[in-house]
Amino acid sequence: MANKLYCKINLEDSIGFNNNALFCIGTGRMNLALRKEYYNQLKKVQEDIHFSYIRGHGLFCDDMAVYHIYEEDGTEKTEYNFTYLDMVFDDYLSMGLKPFVELGFMPEKLASGSQTVFYWKGNVTPPSDYNKWAELIKATVNHWIDRYGREEVITWPFEVWNEPNLPGFWKDADMNEYFHLYEVTVKAVKNCDSRIRIGGPAICGVDDERWLHSFLEHCSNNKIPLDFVTRHAYATDLPEKDGHYTYQNLRKPEVFMNELKESRRIIDSFKEYTGMEMHLTEFNTSYTPLNPIHDTNLNAAYIARLLSELGDVCASYSYWTFGDVFEEAGVSYTPFSGCFGLLTNGMIPKPTYWAFSFFRNLRANAVARSEHYIITKDNMGVIYGIAWNPVEGNEDKDIYLQISIDLENGEYRMVTKLVDENTCNPLKDWINMGSPANLKKEQTELLLECAKPLVKIERLSVTDGNLKFEIPLSSNALCSFEIQRIYPETDRGFHPYRIRGA
Amino acid sequence: MANKLYCKINLEDSIGFNNNALFCIGTGRMNLALRKEYYNQLKKVQEDIHFSYIRGHGLFCDDMAVYHIYEEDGTEKTEYNFTYLDMVFDDYLSMGLKPFVELGFMPEKLASGSQTVFYWKGNVTPPSDYNKWAELIKATVNHWIDRYGREEVITWPFEVWNEPNLPGFWKDADMNEYFHLYEVTVKAVKNCDSRIRIGGPAICGVDDERWLHSFLEHCSNNKIPLDFVTRHAYATDLPEKDGHYTYQNLRKPEVFMNELKESRRIIDSFKEYTGMEMHLTEFNTSYTPLNPIHDTNLNAAYIARLLSELGDVCASYSYWTFGDVFEEAGVSYTPFSGCFGLLTNGMIPKPTYWAFSFFRNLRANAVARSEHYIITKDNMGVIYGIAWNPVEGNEDKDIYLQISIDLENGEYRMVTKLVDENTCNPLKDWINMGSPANLKKEQTELLLECAKPLVKIERLSVTDGNLKFEIPLSSNALCSFEIQRIYPETDRGFHPYRIRGA
Amino acid sequence: MANKLYCKINLEDSIGFNNNALFCIGTGRMNLALRKEYYNQLKKVQEDIHFSYIRGHGLFCDDMAVYHIYEEDGTEKTEYNFTYLDMVFDDYLSMGLKPFVELGFMPEKLASGSQTVFYWKGNVTPPSDYNKWAELIKATVNHWIDRYGREEVITWPFEVWNEPNLPGFWKDADMNEYFHLYEVTVKAVKNCDSRIRIGGPAICGVDDERWLHSFLEHCSNNKIPLDFVTRHAYATDLPEKDGHYTYQNLRKPEVFMNELKESRRIIDSFKEYTGMEMHLTEFNTSYTPLNPIHDTNLNAAYIARLLSELGDVCASYSYWTFGDVFEEAGVSYTPFSGCFGLLTNGMIPKPTYWAFSFFRNLRANAVARSEHYIITKDNMGVIYGIAWNPVEGNEDKDIYLQISIDLENGEYRMVTKLVDENTCNPLKDWINMGSPANLKKEQTELLLECAKPLVKIERLSVTDGNLKFEIPLSSNALCSFEIQRIYPETDRGFHPYRIRGA
Amino acid sequence: MANKLYCKINLEDSIGFNNNALFCIGTGRMNLALRKEYYNQLKKVQEDIHFSYIRGHGLFCDDMAVYHIYEEDGTEKTEYNFTYLDMVFDDYLSMGLKPFVELGFMPEKLASGSQTVFYWKGNVTPPSDYNKWAELIKATVNHWIDRYGREEVITWPFEVWNEPNLPGFWKDADMNEYFHLYEVTVKAVKNCDSRIRIGGPAICGVDDERWLHSFLEHCSNNKIPLDFVTRHAYATDLPEKDGHYTYQNLRKPEVFMNELKESRRIIDSFKEYTGMEMHLTEFNTSYTPLNPIHDTNLNAAYIARLLSELGDVCASYSYWTFGDVFEEAGVSYTPFSGCFGLLTNGMIPKPTYWAFSFFRNLRANAVARSEHYIITKDNMGVIYGIAWNPVEGNEDKDIYLQISIDLENGEYRMVTKLVDENTCNPLKDWINMGSPANLKKEQTELLLECAKPLVKIERLSVTDGNLKFEIPLSSNALCSFEIQRIYPETDRGFHPYRIRGA
Repeated sequence: MANKLYCKINLEDSIGFNNNALFCIGTGRMNLALRKEYYNQLKKVQEDIHFSYIRGHGLFCDDMAVYHIYEEDGTEKTEYNFTYLDMVFDDYLSMGLKPFVELGFMPEKLASGSQTVFYWKGNVTPPSDYNKWAELIKATVNHWIDRYGREEVITWPFEVWNEPNLPGFWKDADMNEYFHLYEVTVKAVKNCDSRIRIGGPAICGVDDERWLHSFLEHCSNNKIPLDFVTRHAYATDLPEKDGHYTYQNLRKPEVFMNELKESRRIIDSFKEYTGMEMHLTEFNTSYTPLNPIHDTNLNAAYIARLLSELGDVCASYSYWTFGDVFEEAGVSYTPFSGCFGLLTNGMIPKPTYWAFSFFRNLRANAVARSEHYIITKDNMGVIYGIAWNPVEGNEDKDIYLQISIDLENGEYRMVTKLVDENTCNPLKDWINMGSPANLKKEQTELLLECAKPLVKIERLSVTDGNLKFEIPLSSNALCSFEIQRIYPETDRGFHPYRIRGA
Repeated sequence: MANKLYCKINLEDSIGFNNNALFCIGTGRMNLALRKEYYNQLKKVQEDIHFSYIRGHGLFCDDMAVYHIYEEDGTEKTEYNFTYLDMVFDDYLSMGLKPFVELGFMPEKLASGSQTVFYWKGNVTPPSDYNKWAELIKATVNHWIDRYGREEVITWPFEVWNEPNLPGFWKDADMNEYFHLYEVTVKAVKNCDSRIRIGGPAICGVDDERWLHSFLEHCSNNKIPLDFVTRHAYATDLPEKDGHYTYQNLRKPEVFMNELKESRRIIDSFKEYTGMEMHLTEFNTSYTPLNPIHDTNLNAAYIARLLSELGDVCASYSYWTFGDVFEEAGVSYTPFSGCFGLLTNGMIPKPTYWAFSFFRNLRANAVARSEHYIITKDNMGVIYGIAWNPVEGNEDKDIYLQISIDLENGEYRMVTKLVDENTCNPLKDWINMGSPANLKKEQTELLLECAKPLVKIERLSVTDGNLKFEIPLSSNALCSFEIQRIYPETDRGFHPYRIRGA
Repeated sequence: MANKLYCKINLEDSIGFNNNALFCIGTGRMNLALRKEYYNQLKKVQEDIHFSYIRGHGLFCDDMAVYHIYEEDGTEKTEYNFTYLDMVFDDYLSMGLKPFVELGFMPEKLASGSQTVFYWKGNVTPPSDYNKWAELIKATVNHWIDRYGREEVITWPFEVWNEPNLPGFWKDADMNEYFHLYEVTVKAVKNCDSRIRIGGPAICGVDDERWLHSFLEHCSNNKIPLDFVTRHAYATDLPEKDGHYTYQNLRKPEVFMNELKESRRIIDSFKEYTGMEMHLTEFNTSYTPLNPIHDTNLNAAYIARLLSELGDVCASYSYWTFGDVFEEAGVSYTPFSGCFGLLTNGMIPKPTYWAFSFFRNLRANAVARSEHYIITKDNMGVIYGIAWNPVEGNEDKDIYLQISIDLENGEYRMVTKLVDENTCNPLKDWINMGSPANLKKEQTELLLECAKPLVKIERLSVTDGNLKFEIPLSSNALCSFEIQRIYPETDRGFHPYRIRGA
Repeated sequence: MANKLYCKINLEDSIGFNNNALFCIGTGRMNLALRKEYYNQLKKVQEDIHFSYIRGHGLFCDDMAVYHIYEEDGTEKTEYNFTYLDMVFDDYLSMGLKPFVELGFMPEKLASGSQTVFYWKGNVTPPSDYNKWAELIKATVNHWIDRYGREEVITWPFEVWNEPNLPGFWKDADMNEYFHLYEVTVKAVKNCDSRIRIGGPAICGVDDERWLHSFLEHCSNNKIPLDFVTRHAYATDLPEKDGHYTYQNLRKPEVFMNELKESRRIIDSFKEYTGMEMHLTEFNTSYTPLNPIHDTNLNAAYIARLLSELGDVCASYSYWTFGDVFEEAGVSYTPFSGCFGLLTNGMIPKPTYWAFSFFRNLRANAVARSEHYIITKDNMGVIYGIAWNPVEGNEDKDIYLQISIDLENGEYRMVTKLVDENTCNPLKDWINMGSPANLKKEQTELLLECAKPLVKIERLSVTDGNLKFEIPLSSNALCSFEIQRIYPETDRGFHPYRIRGA
């Protein structure tokens, strides 16, 4: 089955479009940032994509070793150890990343209970002493101000806790307790510098409307500072488990977007919060790091569509996560384990990697947009578009995108980069290799040779003021195309017609 | 027009085949080895291909600043400066390359005349004083022995001068003068260490039969040491000049090979030289660095065929040259200037680069061979083949190579790497970009993204003891294929049929 | 107080001396090998010192995620995950290090109890099922054979558990239980390849004589394979704790050595074990990672002496540990925290780093040796010595080493490298900087500029067949000196007397 | 002989001082910028010192291959080749360096004569056709505008020719011919963009007063654009040659400075040029690359003094040159050949390297200055000073600089870096090694270990509002010192008095 889609582009058009795709990226817990593989993956992501902020869990978990108590002269005293925190944040900043600080989870010695979340056991109970929690926050923020400078730290957004609307992440999903935590935390942070921007409630899509409404009401009624709203969103339906894996169906993109629009509506319903930034501090297709969908071309095509629409309602949307150094559900058995990352352990880019890489190249001015493409141009007249074709299930559905643009007569260079199930599908290649659990070096290198977009450079001549071309999109194809005017040069005596293959 | 070629492989067969493709590589003059771009190109070549020896001109040219005279107390004295020579040879050895030493050309202060060759003006006249020439040789060789160790230096082959049968390279192409130079030089070298292997006459294919016969006769009659014979060969017909460029037609591979077989026959006709090593110390399609053929897929396919046959008659065959840092005909105006290199200035691999890269991977035992392919295997049962389809002129001629191999039942991984006019043709891509004379960084990066073989990983199941597959070869395609047994693993719960695109 | 020590060297002498200083090095637990800082530290150590083997704890601890159970069809099944183990061993081998494999501690799911050791909670109880333990060992070793090759794996020594004679490391320090573990483990390992060499009992110096004797008797009586004996040794007396730190006095080197000689005597008392290799799989001054002595020049001078003597009784002696990425007592609060490493977090070499670096340069033939120096030469006549002067307590005791060697007349180059409390004392420099807990980049760089030996190059002329020179050793100085013959060259017109300062 | 110098610093003082030391640096001819060793040296210089501009000869020399003529249809035509120029300027810009463009020398095909300068034979005759010269200039500048952008190129200063007042550099030192060249060139440059700043007359100190006056008069009278004045200055007297070397005495710094002040006076004597920038586009002690003084500590101390004074009269002063890849007088026979560079071939920093490195660290506000030191502070209260003690001839003259500063009570960190004839004298070390002409790798590494300042970190306590300290300066010492307030931290239980050597 194949469809033709016609697209007539007027370069004078200006279409509403916000490209916030590179504002923030998710990461596995802070302690993992000490790992070599983590560093290498993030470094590559920054070179090719370059996000501005990074957000992850576990800042105060015991493996970061920040909070300590000891006895002296018969009294309990507190001391802080910022050794690991400094290593992590130094690395982030050296890679051009600022932290989007998530304040959590609870150090064991400050916890009121023993409930934990994840394989790595983050304590999710409220503090046993809110004063000590406030002291911890202040000591940490002031340490950052001392180390990185006040003007730097005030550019970092802060978020209080993670998904308190789930009992797994916040004991009993106790809303009032969260409001208390939020208030204490906000005051501690603002005490360090009132210019630091802070937000919440970091909820996911469960009972989220009630939570969001109550949270805003609470802040509003009690004059508790709130600089932005945060929430999460995932696009899959109910899970089915099988061995190490979880399989799920995708929700329709429209359904996914509607949930966010509802949040937007709730925020805007408060007079003082109308238009307030909403940050999607986590999003992805599936919320489990065990769903093979994350490694597919379907994921790339589906995410590309979301990236083209999320800027309509969100100030940022942080893909969860940049890489596969991740342990929430344990340690992966294979390099293609369905984990969240844009690249696998072993540094192989997954198809979704290229979605972000393409969105990086979008130009400043949008000129056309649909559920299958976004097309932009810059002030120099360069046209850059991205197209996608997500197809779930077993059947194929090809699309032929037929584009027509009025352009000045002349010569043009068109560069297309194609990522689809046939040309850039490392998951399939790995299966064809026998799905080895532990890649040997030559296997990794071979996969790296394949895990790249197919790039083509073509010459187009415009002679009648109009350019027509077709972008074929097979199932789950993701494609970028760039068109720019060229002024060919010819060296003396160089004649392509005299050269075989030229 | 398309042909089918059938190839039934018996893995127990053992076919005569010598793979000397990586023994030696040519280079622009020694002084250019001080350049950064030269170093970077050679480093990449060594990483991907790894030649054992390197040979080039200009060891004693004045830009190497080795030979000096000065007056002291009224007499002329000689002094040597090895500053640059050490820099060059240190770098070669650090990259795993040993020099195949060409002794020449003449330092100006030691020359008997002023005739020069090339844009860079190498003096091609005999020494004004053969004793001083012998002293220069001995001082240089002894310096190397001191710096690199005697046991190292005796592994370096030495060659006397370059193409003395051409009047452009040796004044008047004076044969007797060359014989004298050869004798003086051999004695000087052997004086340093008699184990050093040395040869000549380094002739090209002009009046070559008479020269070779006379040279061998001269050495034989006068008991002059000779450890191996050297010559050059190029595969193009008469040149036609146009602006900066030269266009030529290719000779048939059989004609090219016959010239070498005749040399072989002449050598073997001397009883004491029967079976003596013949080193082809230069070869390529065209002998001019201004012929665009060097940048084409045709060149790659043609050279691949030569590489599959040259080992029948030659101990080595040194492709002229590894890279495009080269000035014999001046400085290139563009990155695709028809120069000899395997890669361009700017580090873009040309199609022929991959011919050598593929020949590096040939396994130890040849099992099949024709004018279109060579197929090998190793002791672990891995099969590795290369196929090519050179097509000159304007018409296309596709070939379908149909291979049948008896193999044990089981699962196999097949990796193909394809270089052809559609998939890996940087010359064409550059023309499509408008053939810019001076590449900007983003242009170079774009060409680098395209200048790679198309790699595919497939899974093959053998169920009836035989594997059949087809390798399609479009015009000027060059293709490698590797087949190895795999033992698939399956992680618990991982089911490709449940994963879209897997 | 100062002493003169006279040393008359006869270069024809041959002194008994075994330099095994670089055979093996200790490391923090396996999981830490995934860290970037760990990798960087180890890489530098390998570049400058280059150990052959590495040994550490935690191979089977849960943070390596090797051992797993799950239920299927109502029965419990086992599965293994080698993802992290492969990352760690791949890195070791890529740095030229082979593992000296310590088999332990116990995966939680295989443990018979919940007792743990260290901040990072290694389970120290026997397996709940010895068959499953044997299966785990076999699966692991066979995985290595598959990944790294059989011939590689048989070059790795294996050791069973760690310090079972301490109740903290092995439940109740139960000797018979250990003997059982040893027997089961040896059989499992030898089942994979009987050529793999394995040993024990990995005891430290507590009740060690009884343990060693009983262990050997048990192996001997029961014909249990034993390829070598292992033990540990530390050189400090009782600890005194103060805040985060522990202070101890050093034992006399003679006392330290006597303990090892007694072990040697016990081994040799068994006829079948006479002369069997004894590997000191851990040693250092203090056994606690909280003793500032590890960061001092005293440590370097004391360890240098031990390195000069340990080869008399031990086949190897593995300094505990190469770097400060280490968590047995928690996470360090400062870069100079008294941890075991040769370099600090932040990559600053401690004085002891240079002791190993100097021992790397010792030549093949020892010609002189005392409690203050070791002097060697090579076949080229180069003389290389190391001298040290450990001084504990508050008083200084300088030594002047006065050396006399009969040498041929001629010119010599003498290179001395000095590490002492004045010239290469990064701990002191850091204190002078205000002992900042968290170094900023410029602070680290400044410390790195200082943390280097003071190198001097001198010219010595021998005119009467004898060379005399003095090596001054201030308190806790460590010094290397190298003397080699030179043949000065003089460029035409270059006259040092005409050049100010030359 | 020793002197005490007292220096009482008032931190509130503000002393006139311009630090233009890092504005520009000299280089060997453009073609050498293609060399690997050149690139490595310049990269290191930029990392440690970071100059803003670079200036050298040979932009249009034939080894840059820019200017070409050919015949077509019976007429001579011109073509340009920017291949090498782009490689050179791309590299400069990638290292944070902008070109200070020197327009010269003459391409052979455009030259009116055959006179050349230097070993590398730069043609120094006027153009045979001034129109073609103007075309060449415009083609080159427009090429740069196209490649690097107009806004970039207008930040590059342009200078016309080099030292036309010497007959060796400009045929017959023909002043009127130079004025014509200047005028034609200025118009060509301004034609590309009138904002480009351009100057001359690039004279050295021979007949310089007459030349400067005449040049300014000529420009003024004829309304020829002039944006700044350029000249050169060297500080040595008459040369004495000996073999490869040249020996000279230094002029007194005052004499050197007076020559420049006279130029300043001449410029200011023209009403329209009063206060116009004067750029010293070359300076050094000796003007010959064969004077060993360049490799000495004397050179470093003397240059340090000049750097402290030159900003009084010059907008910039470009040390001639950054490195020893240089061929004006031929190829160096040894690594310490008296060449101009801040570092040797082989990357060994000479003492003068550190003079520039120290001047990089000077703070914004000067507080004290004499012929022996310059002292500065920044807004954070950090004090940074440099002191020097140049001593020519055979006698030593030590100085003790005694500094007194009123400071707040508290703890301070003082870092001193010392370069003197005993501690950082690679020339002497190399002589002690036997002055080998061609360094082996281990010899280079050994010299690199020694060729570093001696760095010391001390703790100073101010208890009575004043800090006194002494900087001893042996003959030809160069020393930097930095004082900054610290707030010591103490980890719990960490007591230096309990740690030997702390």
